[in-house]
Parts: sequence; C-alpha cells; structure tokens
Amino acid sequence: MTIPPSASAPARDVGDARLPLRPELADEAPYGAPQLDVPVLLNVNENPYPPSEAVVATIAEHVAAAARGLNRYPDRDFDALRADLAGYLARESGVGLAPEQIWAANGSNEVMLHLLQAFGGPGRTAVSFAPTYSMYPEYARDSHTRWVTGRRQSDFTLDVEHAVETIERERPSVVLLASPNNPTGTALPLETVEAVLDAAARVEVADAPEADGRRAGAVVVVDEAYAEFRRPGTPSALELLAGHPHLAVSRTMSKAFAAAGLRLGYLAASRALVDALRVVRLPYHLSAVTQAAARGALAHRDELLGQVQTLRAERDDLVAWLRAVRHRGEALQVAESDANFVLFGTFADRHAVWRGLLDRGVLIRETGPDGWLRVSVGTPSETAAFRDALTDVLAELED
Amino acid sequence: MTIPPSASAPARDVGDARLPLRPELADEAPYGAPQLDVPVLLNVNENPYPPSEAVVATIAEHVAAAARGLNRYPDRDFDALRADLAGYLARESGVGLAPEQIWAANGSNEVMLHLLQAFGGPGRTAVSFAPTYSMYPEYARDSHTRWVTGRRQSDFTLDVEHAVETIERERPSVVLLASPNNPTGTALPLETVEAVLDAAARVEVADAPEADGRRAGAVVVVDEAYAEFRRPGTPSALELLAGHPHLAVSRTMSKAFAAAGLRLGYLAASRALVDALRVVRLPYHLSAVTQAAARGALAHRDELLGQVQTLRAERDDLVAWLRAVRHRGEALQVAESDANFVLFGTFADRHAVWRGLLDRGVLIRETGPDGWLRVSVGTPSETAAFRDALTDVLAELED
Repeated sequence: MTIPPSASAPARDVGDARLPLRPELADEAPYGAPQLDVPVLLNVNENPYPPSEAVVATIAEHVAAAARGLNRYPDRDFDALRADLAGYLARESGVGLAPEQIWAANGSNEVMLHLLQAFGGPGRTAVSFAPTYSMYPEYARDSHTRWVTGRRQSDFTLDVEHAVETIERERPSVVLLASPNNPTGTALPLETVEAVLDAAARVEVADAPEADGRRAGAVVVVDEAYAEFRRPGTPSALELLAGHPHLAVSRTMSKAFAAAGLRLGYLAASRALVDALRVVRLPYHLSAVTQAAARGALAHRDELLGQVQTLRAERDDLVAWLRAVRHRGEALQVAESDANFVLFGTFADRHAVWRGLLDRGVLIRETGPDGWLRVSVGTPSETAAFRDALTDVLAELED
Repeated sequence: MTIPPSASAPARDVGDARLPLRPELADEAPYGAPQLDVPVLLNVNENPYPPSEAVVATIAEHVAAAARGLNRYPDRDFDALRADLAGYLARESGVGLAPEQIWAANGSNEVMLHLLQAFGGPGRTAVSFAPTYSMYPEYARDSHTRWVTGRRQSDFTLDVEHAVETIERERPSVVLLASPNNPTGTALPLETVEAVLDAAARVEVADAPEADGRRAGAVVVVDEAYAEFRRPGTPSALELLAGHPHLAVSRTMSKAFAAAGLRLGYLAASRALVDALRVVRLPYHLSAVTQAAARGALAHRDELLGQVQTLRAERDDLVAWLRAVRHRGEALQVAESDANFVLFGTFADRHAVWRGLLDRGVLIRETGPDGWLRVSVGTPSETAAFRDALTDVLAELED
C-alpha cells in the first residue's frame, strides 16, 4: 500500500523555481492525514453512516433551487442558515440564541482562522493545553500568532490552577479549549471553563481597545466539534454564553451531522464577537450551494442525529472492550471519551501497531502522546473488524 | 430604500464588549457592496443569464452523487476538478496545462489569500497599480502584507517604465495586475506583463530562499477574472506560463460561467507555485458539494460560454452608446473595456447620478476614480433600462 503522492509530498520544488516562499513555510508539508483506500476507515473521526436517500434528495432539491440563481452572488450574511443553526442549537442544548449570534464558514478550520485574524495575529499570543487538536498550531502559524501550549494532566483533564497561571503569565488574546478534546475525548466541566473565562477577562491585551481605563482581555474559544457525542450529564459551554461576551463555542456539521464533505463549521457567541468576525471574513465566503446544502441537511436533523445515540453506545462498548485487553501482561490504558473516538495505549512501538492494523485493512490514526493511538467509532461491523485486527496484531507483537 | 443593517453596520459593539479586536480593524466595516432588492442589478458584474434547467439538473445530479458520501471528508486535492479546469483552459485559451498546475478555492478571494499567505505576509510588500480592484488592499490587510500602489495612466493603461521603477524601488514579493482591470475594463498587452515579469524576477526578496547566490524574486499574479470577455485579438497571460515559473494567472467561475453563487476561483501556474499554495491552504478547503457543483457546471461549458459572445456584443454597443451621450456640453468619457462592465464619467457629483439611477430601479456601482461610475453589462432589457434611466437622470441634472 502506498500513500498517494498528492497526500504527502512536501513542497520540494519551490526552492528550485526561485519562488519567495515565506521562510517559516520552507520545510512545511501540506497538513492532512493520509487519504488511503482501505476497507475500514477509522482514522479521521468521520460518522460511518452515509446520509439516507431522503436526506440526499432534500439536499439535491435545495441545491437545484439555489442553482437557478447561481449567476448571482450568495447572501453574504447567510441569514437563513444562521437562523436554522440557532434553531438547531436551541433544540440540542436548550440554549436560546439569536441568528446574529451565529457565525459559519467553510469548516471549523475557517471559523478558527477568522477568530485568529480578528483577535490574534502578529505580536499576539494564543494559548491551548496539550495534547490537543493538531490543527491549532497551523491556525496560529497562518495568522502569525505566537503559539503557546500549557499541559493537560496525565488523565488528560485540565488542571485549573495551571491553566490560570499559564494565562496570567502568557497574557494571550485567544485561549483555545477543545471539549470534548481531540485526540483524547476529554470533556471539560463548566467550572473549569468558567475559571478560564475569568482569567481570560483579567488579562489586559497590550494593544487592545481600552474601556473604563482597562484594556480588553482574551477571547476564549471552546471547540465543541464533538459535543453531540458527550455522555448524559456532560454540559455544553453554550450554557455559559449569556454572561460571557468574550466566549465563542464552535461546532461543526462534519461529525454528528455526518456531513464532513459539506465543510460547514459554525460558532455561537455574543453579537459583538460575531460582528468582529464579519470584518475579517472575505465577502461571500459561504457559497449559495453550501448554504443550500447545509439547510437541506439541517431539515433532517432528527434523523441524522438519531445515529448519534447508536454511536455513543458503540463508543462506550469499545472503551469497555479495550479496557479488558491485556498487552505484555498489563491492561491497556483507555482515555475517558465524550467523543466519537477513543484514545488508547500505550505501546512501546505504536507505529508497529498502527501498521499491523493497516495491513489488516483497518486505518486508524497515529496521533496523541507517545505510545497512544486513536480509533474512530465506526459501524458495529467496522468496530468488530478493528477489534479482531487489534487482537491479532497484539498477539503477533507478543511473540 | 434602505440598506439592510447586516450589509453595512460597522462592528460598533466590539469596544463595548471589551473584546481584543486587532487595532487596525477597530474602525473597519465588513467589505461588500450593498445587497439591495432592486429590479435592475448592474452593480457587481454578475452574468445576467441564470443557468438553464439542463445546467441546474446536472448540478443537482452531481451534488446528489456527492451527498451519498457526505459523511466522508472530500478529496483534499480535488484532482478531478483540477483536471476539468485544465481541460477548460486548454479549450478557452489554447494553452495546455497539467492538472497539477491548477489551484482552486472558495472564490478568487481565497485564492488571493493563499497567494499572500505563501508569498506575502509580515515584513513583505505587495504592489499593484491603481485604480484597480478594491479587494486587493483587504487581502493585504488580512495577511499583514505592506500594500503599495503605483498608478495607471489617465487612459487606465499601465506605463511600463513606471511599473518597473515601482517594482525596483519597493522590492515587493508579490505584484498584482488585473487584466482586464476592475473597475476600468483595461486589458494589458503581453509585452507589459513580460516587462513586469522580468522586473519581478530581478527583485531579491530579503528573506526569501537563496539559490545560486541570489534570493528569489517576486511572484506576479495576473488576475483574469474577466478574461473570457476580452475582445478578439486580446491575449491571455496564460500564454506566458511556460517560461515563467513565478507567474500565476487567476480566473473565476463567477463571471463568464454565470456561477457567482458557486464561489469557485482558480489559478494556473507552475507546479512549484501551486505546491507552495498547498502548504498554506486549510485542509479540505473545497467541499465535496462545491467540487461536484463546479464539475456539473463545467460539463455545460459550451452552453454557459455561449452567452459570453452575446454579452461582449452588448458591451460594445453600450460603450458606443455612452460615447454618444453628452453631459453639460461635453461627450462622456468611456474607458475601453475588455470586461463585462463599463467605466464612464466624469460627473461633478457622481453620487447624485448613482442615486438618481437607483431611484429609477437601476443599481450600478459608485467606484473607481473620482467622478466615474461603473455599470455591469446586463440583458438587453436591463441595459435598455439603464440607458433610459441615465438619459432621464442626466436631463434632470442639466436643469
């Protein structure tokens, strides 16, 4: 099996052609997990259930209607889509939001870029706590924001005192918290988010606007890409929006909505915060086709989210099964997960385990702290294939 | 008639909420022409002909096929779309290109952002020649690139000596040339582009990679958003790609393809230049839905481009008609146009003319040098409405 050249080739010809590539990009390869053609894909936390024919038909109808006016630019402020997303969040989390509190872009990637363009940038600092999502440093690099990571504890929870100290020391303009965290699956208690919000509000960002004799503090972004998979009783940071105008809670249609191919990320925040993002967005960033397809998918939200319950149960079973696996005389470590993936380990040679699974047609992700691996929750048959392959690989490695 | 608040409201609440908005954004309003509900829209150079039902059906079929796998991430390198775009350019301009020489993104806006992220940025300079497209300074601002404009001559052509001097003095890493230029409609002769390419190659960008004892020079971007509307005999800079690895020629499906709502911009360049853009793009920036819809539209390229011939003829008639209009005793000035719009003037109070047209249901654009106005080429009945309204407004202003 070979990784296609386009997925991993570094920009190696750039120097030869005498192009003025920025120096910090000279040795960088395009970001992204290998896109391999393997029977069981459990590597990028996709939802394994494709849309039903009813969903496909609605999306096609919405897009056909939009295509009839395709010669015109789209609604730059995507008001109808924002209203639909606000309606969905109200139903999912019980938090009422005005459409003007919603922002959306081509994937959470672009939402995060807008956040760092508005509030980060040259001379400013963003803080997060590792291990966490591997794209965050890319957003910082692309927006010329200094990137600082504190640490999570050995069980991947966040130590509040350490988080507050890090914020006080680094004086960031943006704090990024993933909850549930990728690649660990760890959700944050609201008290932790509140403590971070308080510390962020106390920062005075050196070149920020001043009001009442004080400079503005940091924005806190809680990345809830996997929020719909959280276990019962786990709260959403959406509940904290009311009292915190410097909080943004980002979501995506890629995971629970089974629409990774749609590239629709969004966030909820104060009107003021959303207004700031409107300044840095490129006009017409969301196409009429994207707006139409997203609204089509949202019209089927109950059906699409029905599978979330199935995936949560499958996730809990997988965690329990992995905890019963013994490797070289010890039980595997398995992180608590509120997401649609599970981080497990540790292996002296994780690459050998990853490779052994791939040789058996199961692609998972070699990511996270040394020795750990991440597997996405698939369909029951995909998860069974993963269990069989892992059993087989570990037996081989014991020999 | 009122401009909807979402189209023009500045980010006025940002200060109140104590958010750390970047200082250079504090007084900025979101970019974009007013989106007004007016019978005759001739303000944003859209193609007035909506797609036929056959085009709509193909787009819907392509999107339905993509939606069946919407739970998966899209092809990150959009290989099939790149091949389709290369095939189109070969047919349109006679220049053969490999798919690896094509790049695409959500509108030319994002293509330009990728270019400036790779080759511009803090400590670097981009140069263009005014009057030119009003988004260029926004791209520079968003990428923290210093922005310098030389000037065009009074007939809006580019003086080669001035252009070369400006490049030698400012030592940019990026030179942006629009051809046909917006808002003037002016196409550049290939000799002018070649002189700029030579001057750009001689620049040594201070922090660029070194090869053979010299630092890399500037990248030259020729923005050909309106190229399909050029008059017979006007060349495309695509013809210069072969010998110039530091040249990028950008195009869009928004104008000739009548697909502004699709947001599909693209460029052709050397493989090395495209490889550099792959480093800064956010992964999966082009959705499966966008890729499918674009390929659907491209399958109907002959039909969609058939209207280009009609629009060119309509444009030439409009130029001739405007040149015959007399205002306060003098003939109007009308710029030569190779695009689907015409710049005309001059008026002591252009806002009064713009407003008078709007009061008569015709929206054009108040842009370009003082005293000039820009009108897009519409359908014959839309153009007739514009002619009648302008005649009426100018008569009123004579009183």
